[in-house]
Amino acid sequence: MLNISEIFNAAAVLKGVARKTDIIPANRLDCGCDLYLKTENLQLTGSFKLRGAYYKISQLSDEEKAKGVIACSAGNHAQGVALGATHNGIKSLICLPAGAPISKVEATKGYGAEVCLVPGVYDDAYAKAIELQKEHGYTFVHPFDDELVIAGQGTIGLEILEQLPDVEAVVVPIGGGGLISGVAFAIKTLRPDVKVYGVQAAGAPSMERSIHEGTPVHLDSVSTIADGIAVKQPGENTYELCKQYVDEIVTVNDDETAAAILALMERQKVVAEGAGAVAVAAVMFHKLPVNGKKVVCLVSGGNIDVNTLNRVITRGLAKSGRNYTFIIDLFDKPGQLSGVLHAIADLGANVISVTHERINTTAEINGCTIRLELETRDNAHIDEIRKSLMSSGFHVMN
Amino acid sequence: MLNISEIFNAAAVLKGVARKTDIIPANRLDCGCDLYLKTENLQLTGSFKLRGAYYKISQLSDEEKAKGVIACSAGNHAQGVALGATHNGIKSLICLPAGAPISKVEATKGYGAEVCLVPGVYDDAYAKAIELQKEHGYTFVHPFDDELVIAGQGTIGLEILEQLPDVEAVVVPIGGGGLISGVAFAIKTLRPDVKVYGVQAAGAPSMERSIHEGTPVHLDSVSTIADGIAVKQPGENTYELCKQYVDEIVTVNDDETAAAILALMERQKVVAEGAGAVAVAAVMFHKLPVNGKKVVCLVSGGNIDVNTLNRVITRGLAKSGRNYTFIIDLFDKPGQLSGVLHAIADLGANVISVTHERINTTAEINGCTIRLELETRDNAHIDEIRKSLMSSGFHVMN
Repeated sequence: MLNISEIFNAAAVLKGVARKTDIIPANRLDCGCDLYLKTENLQLTGSFKLRGAYYKISQLSDEEKAKGVIACSAGNHAQGVALGATHNGIKSLICLPAGAPISKVEATKGYGAEVCLVPGVYDDAYAKAIELQKEHGYTFVHPFDDELVIAGQGTIGLEILEQLPDVEAVVVPIGGGGLISGVAFAIKTLRPDVKVYGVQAAGAPSMERSIHEGTPVHLDSVSTIADGIAVKQPGENTYELCKQYVDEIVTVNDDETAAAILALMERQKVVAEGAGAVAVAAVMFHKLPVNGKKVVCLVSGGNIDVNTLNRVITRGLAKSGRNYTFIIDLFDKPGQLSGVLHAIADLGANVISVTHERINTTAEINGCTIRLELETRDNAHIDEIRKSLMSSGFHVMN
Repeated sequence: MLNISEIFNAAAVLKGVARKTDIIPANRLDCGCDLYLKTENLQLTGSFKLRGAYYKISQLSDEEKAKGVIACSAGNHAQGVALGATHNGIKSLICLPAGAPISKVEATKGYGAEVCLVPGVYDDAYAKAIELQKEHGYTFVHPFDDELVIAGQGTIGLEILEQLPDVEAVVVPIGGGGLISGVAFAIKTLRPDVKVYGVQAAGAPSMERSIHEGTPVHLDSVSTIADGIAVKQPGENTYELCKQYVDEIVTVNDDETAAAILALMERQKVVAEGAGAVAVAAVMFHKLPVNGKKVVCLVSGGNIDVNTLNRVITRGLAKSGRNYTFIIDLFDKPGQLSGVLHAIADLGANVISVTHERINTTAEINGCTIRLELETRDNAHIDEIRKSLMSSGFHVMN
C-alpha cells in the first residue's frame, strides 16, 4: 500500500538529482482560469520519468544494484531509467524496438545505458527484456505499475502544493497512470480540497474506459500524436489509485493537442510533446469545470520529434490564417505570373513557394494553373488578397 | 551615475511584478563548458524588457504618472512598457510603424496600452512619438539609454549571483546595450572575478565596432534574424558602461543563431527568439574562452514569429539530414513512380511531398522528373536511400 511517507522519502532522495521544476503563470493562454504550468518538460531528460526511475533504483538492495536494471521503452522512460541508473552508479540495459528514432537511441546511450535493439515492435522488445531479465537477474523497472515508481512521480504533487499553496485544481496527463497516481495520492492525502483531474488522448482512452466500466480494460489498438501516453491497459495499482483519488478523467483529440502544443510554444515559449500538452488542451478546450479557478497543468514532457513539431506548426499556421495556398487559373501568356506576384507583394504577403503548371485538365487549352503558398497575417489578410486578385481580373479557384 | 543601490532598489520594486526566472542546466547542448540558461524568455511578456520599463515608470513623480508614458517600439520594449504602465496603474501610448506584425500589436494592446499606428517605418513612428510627447507632456521611456531602465535590467545580474553563486562567466546579448550594461555593472561591482561577455549579431555589430574604434559609431544599415538586437547605434550611457565593465564582445552570424534556436528548442525545450539565442550561439560555436567553466547564457526573450520559427526548423532539419529532396529522372512509363516510392518505404523514410513533372528540358524526350521531399533520420540514412535507388536502376540527380 502506497504511503505518504514513501513520497516524502522519495522527495528527500531526489533532492539534488531531479530538478524542482518551476511553476510558470500561463495567463496568455486565455483559458478562463488562473492557469499555471508545472514545467516537467524542463526536467532533466526532458520529462518527469527520471523521478520514479531514480527513486525505484535507489531503493534496490546492494545485491540487486550489483546486477543492474533493465527496462523496455522507446521513449521518456528509457532516458529516465538510463540517467537514474547512472546517477546511482549502476548498470542499465534498455531494450528498444529496432525502428526507434535514432535521436532517442542516442539520448538513451548518452545518459549511460547499454541499448539492445530488438527486431520487431514494442511487444517484441518487451519479450526480449523479460527474457534477459530472467537470464541475468536484472531488476525490471516498470514504467508505471510499481509503487516506488509511483512514489517518485508523486514528489511532483508535493512540489505543487509547496510552490502554489492556494492551488484549487491540478490537471495531469494519463498514459499507464503512474504519474497521476502519485500526484493524486500526494495531493488528496495532504489537501483533499484540491481537485485532481486526468486527461487522456481520445485515441488511447484506456484508463478513462476502465474507470467508466469499473474494471481495467484492454484496448486492441491505440492511435494518437501523444505517443507518450498511448498505453493499451492501465496497471493494477494505478487503476485502483485513479479510481480512489482522481476526481474526473476527460479526453482530448489530436487537433486539440496540436493546438495546445502550438499555443505553449508561441505564447508560453516552452516546447511540449503531445503527451505533455494534453492537460493544457483539456483546459484550453473547456473540458473541465475549472472556470475562474487557480489551476496547475502538468506539462509532463518535451521530447517531441522536430519533424513532428514542424508539422504541428505548419498545421497550426494554416488553421490560424498565417499560411495559405492560393490556386489560380491563368491564361498562359507573358506577364501573368508577374502580375499576380506584384499584387501580392503590394499587400505585404510573403511568397513561400510557387508551382506553375501548364498541363492541366480543368483549365482552358491555352491556360495554366499556379499554386502559390503564402505567409499571411490572418484570415482577414487572406480575404483581402483574394479580393485584390479577383478585382485585378485573376481567376482565384479557392 | 549608476549606483549598485539603484539596482538593489529596482529588485525590491520588481518583487512580485517581474518573475524571478529560473536558471536551468543546459548540459545537453554539449558546449565544452558547464552551461546554464537564465530563462528571461519565460519572463512575463516573453522578455526581460518588463524589468527596466516597470522600474522606470515606478520612479516617476505623481505628476508625471498622471500624464502617462509613451514609447516607440515594434517589439519587446512595447510589451514591457505596456505591462509596466498597467501594473503601475498609469496610461501608456505606444507608437508602432503601421506594418508591424498584427500579433505584436495585439499583444501590446492586450497588456493595456493604447496603440498609435504610424504610416511608414520605425523612424517615422519615433518622430511621431516625440511629437506626441511634446504635445501632451508624456514621459518618453527609452528602450535602453536610461539609467533607471538599465538599473531594472541589472536585477538579472543580482539574481544570477544569488541563484548560481559559483558562476564564472555570464554571456549576454547586446542590441542598444541596456541589458548588458545593467547586468555587467551589477556583477562586476559585487563579483569582479566573474567574466561578463557580450554578443552581437554579425549583421548589426554597433557596440562591438564602437568599443573597437573607441567611440560610438552609427551603422547605416543592419540586417539579422535577431531583430530584437538590430540597433544602429549604442546609447551614450550604455557605451560607457560596456567600455568599463564588459570583458569582451563577439559576434555570431544568422546561421549560428538559427542553429542555437533549434538546439534550444530541441534539446532544452525552450523557445528563444533570434536575439535571445545569440549568447548560446556564441558558446556553441566556441567564440568565447569559457572551456570547462561554469557559464550562464542569458536567453533574453522568446518572442519569435512562428513563421520564422518554422523556417529555422526547416533549415535546421535539412542541415542535419532529417529532411531531403531527391530529384530523380525517370522514363515516363507506368509503375516507375510506384517503384521509387516502394524502395523508399522499405528504408523507413517518410514522404512529405512528390512533384512529378513531364515537361522537362534536361530529361529525354519521353522522360520525366520527380522531386521527392522526404523525412529522413540523418545524412547516413539519405546516403543509404540514394544507394538503394541507384542500385535499383533509378537515375538520382542529386
